[in-house]
Amino acid sequence: MVEGVSKRIRFDDLKLFCRQAYMKAGVPEREACIVADLLARADLRGVETHGVTRLPIYIQRLQKGYVRAECKITSIKDKGPVGFAEAHGSMGHVVAYKAMHQAIEKAEEHGIGCVSVKDSGHFGVAGVFPEMAAERGIIGYICTNSAPMMAPFGGRERIIGNNPLSYAFPAGTYPPVVVDFSCSVVSSGKLILARKKGEKIPIGWAFDKDGLPTQDPYEGYEGGGSLTPVGAHKGYGLTMAHEILTAVLTGGKWTRNIKSLYEEDKSGIQGTCHSFMALDPDCFIGREEFKQNMDRYIKSIKESGKAKNVEEILIPGEPEFRTESKRLKEGIPLSLNTAEELTTLGKSFDLSLPFIE
Amino acid sequence: MVEGVSKRIRFDDLKLFCRQAYMKAGVPEREACIVADLLARADLRGVETHGVTRLPIYIQRLQKGYVRAECKITSIKDKGPVGFAEAHGSMGHVVAYKAMHQAIEKAEEHGIGCVSVKDSGHFGVAGVFPEMAAERGIIGYICTNSAPMMAPFGGRERIIGNNPLSYAFPAGTYPPVVVDFSCSVVSSGKLILARKKGEKIPIGWAFDKDGLPTQDPYEGYEGGGSLTPVGAHKGYGLTMAHEILTAVLTGGKWTRNIKSLYEEDKSGIQGTCHSFMALDPDCFIGREEFKQNMDRYIKSIKESGKAKNVEEILIPGEPEFRTESKRLKEGIPLSLNTAEELTTLGKSFDLSLPFIE
Repeated sequence: MVEGVSKRIRFDDLKLFCRQAYMKAGVPEREACIVADLLARADLRGVETHGVTRLPIYIQRLQKGYVRAECKITSIKDKGPVGFAEAHGSMGHVVAYKAMHQAIEKAEEHGIGCVSVKDSGHFGVAGVFPEMAAERGIIGYICTNSAPMMAPFGGRERIIGNNPLSYAFPAGTYPPVVVDFSCSVVSSGKLILARKKGEKIPIGWAFDKDGLPTQDPYEGYEGGGSLTPVGAHKGYGLTMAHEILTAVLTGGKWTRNIKSLYEEDKSGIQGTCHSFMALDPDCFIGREEFKQNMDRYIKSIKESGKAKNVEEILIPGEPEFRTESKRLKEGIPLSLNTAEELTTLGKSFDLSLPFIE
Repeated sequence: MVEGVSKRIRFDDLKLFCRQAYMKAGVPEREACIVADLLARADLRGVETHGVTRLPIYIQRLQKGYVRAECKITSIKDKGPVGFAEAHGSMGHVVAYKAMHQAIEKAEEHGIGCVSVKDSGHFGVAGVFPEMAAERGIIGYICTNSAPMMAPFGGRERIIGNNPLSYAFPAGTYPPVVVDFSCSVVSSGKLILARKKGEKIPIGWAFDKDGLPTQDPYEGYEGGGSLTPVGAHKGYGLTMAHEILTAVLTGGKWTRNIKSLYEEDKSGIQGTCHSFMALDPDCFIGREEFKQNMDRYIKSIKESGKAKNVEEILIPGEPEFRTESKRLKEGIPLSLNTAEELTTLGKSFDLSLPFIE
């Protein structure tokens, strides 16, 4: 939910604004289109934390030369269904878009495609990439490492990421099932918000800098603490698996060496590593049969008995698709803060931001 | 930990006993070797819940014709790196062993291998299969659906599985990293044990039959409740992903139609579906470089700062490998109950169980 809403804007207008801003910062038009669409789509879906609120920092990093404006991806190895590439500090959104595309093409040819990329950067919402596969009737998967958020199980140093994964599965009449989550119980944003509001956090969200459970949101993150992995050792294992499948496998930067978007980093390579997979249901029951089977499966879950006081059982990805439908009609609400920041950015580029009201 | 220990037995003797028992139940020698090794290995590693304690029920199911004694796997489709097969109700252990082997061979040829199987059965510990890949210097992965354990997020009907996943990553001087977990916070076994002991369970382990959180272990499982997914909607999403990657993709039985090992099931097909993947690091930084990089990564985690009162940071799979080393020397402890059940089983087959003490 967007707090302190002041403005609304149409999806296409927000996308155009982002595209123009990226182009002003030196990004080629075709790539500016890709990242603008992905960024505005995050807000369209209600994932504001990973949407246009980050445009100012992305643009700043381009201007400072911390990110490569023109995407450069070099293939290191390529063998049938598998690809391995290096992205030279290009924008994560564009890198992920192109690598996912390659994985899909490989799956269309070989039944499965797997592409890993090193030396990339922050790419925003994970789910939008595997969805590219789902749009083509194919199963999509992505995992990535991230900036440090968590400590090893039994540790106290914030040296591992909350390394998200995402799957997208095409359905027939239902929207695709999109599973998209990071391996920490909550995001660091929730702790920062609690600290600002002066609220305590529940035990189970974070550890302090000694590795002990804390209810103090400052101690749990900004004060040197670490986020708790989901399911304790389970989330710890999964987050390690994602680090290995990305950074360790490609020889790229481990989480502990990755700086966050908000840190100065003159290296020009944030260095995030991603892996993409695509799998063609034609190699199994068939694409059409798979979609029909998905519909039956989704229906069986949605129509099963609801817990007391629950109105509807939702499928992963469903809340976001509903928000998208609503916001395509009504426009995207922007928080007061984000609207102001974008207006300031627009002014510096001589770009206008056509709000609906 | 094994409660009420009465007996110890050497790994090789336990394996031989299992093999002979399976052969008496009509399983061909080669397949009896496979499943006996997997079962005894579970106890060797300290995963007693999935080890020889289940031998009596497995044998009973063979004798009743609920499981096919001679493994039959039919290829339905096969395209380069991808395979799709049907197992006709064969023993899950043998099916998983053979399918993982096929995925590894495909990865050795194509860089990646993916094999999905329908109409299989319970296969015990997940981690032992991807480890087969790790032994060959390759990354292994498995996921499966299972008997019903959980409700959909917001639901109250126990119709989804806790569908485990496992990854194994080869290392150099360290043992492989083995991530192996199911998508529920705890196993149903913990609730059954708490009920037997008359203890309450913590909020967050289970829901009652109305889908409400409960502290009563009976209400939370045997009384019609359901286990809580790890990380709430996160584990719900992951468990659905595993169901889709196995049963929905292959047209096999969904979790809701799968009976547990302990239910009568004259269909002859328990019907569990599994997917296996193998990925060759030679397509990325190279097998040797990957192992070295794994060692560096593991070392960096293990040598990072420990939380207060923690003696050592452990890597996923490390506790099991330590137990293995110890038990290879000292023998495997069996609980009083398991030792008695195996002795009874042995008598019926005229087989002796050579305990150490």
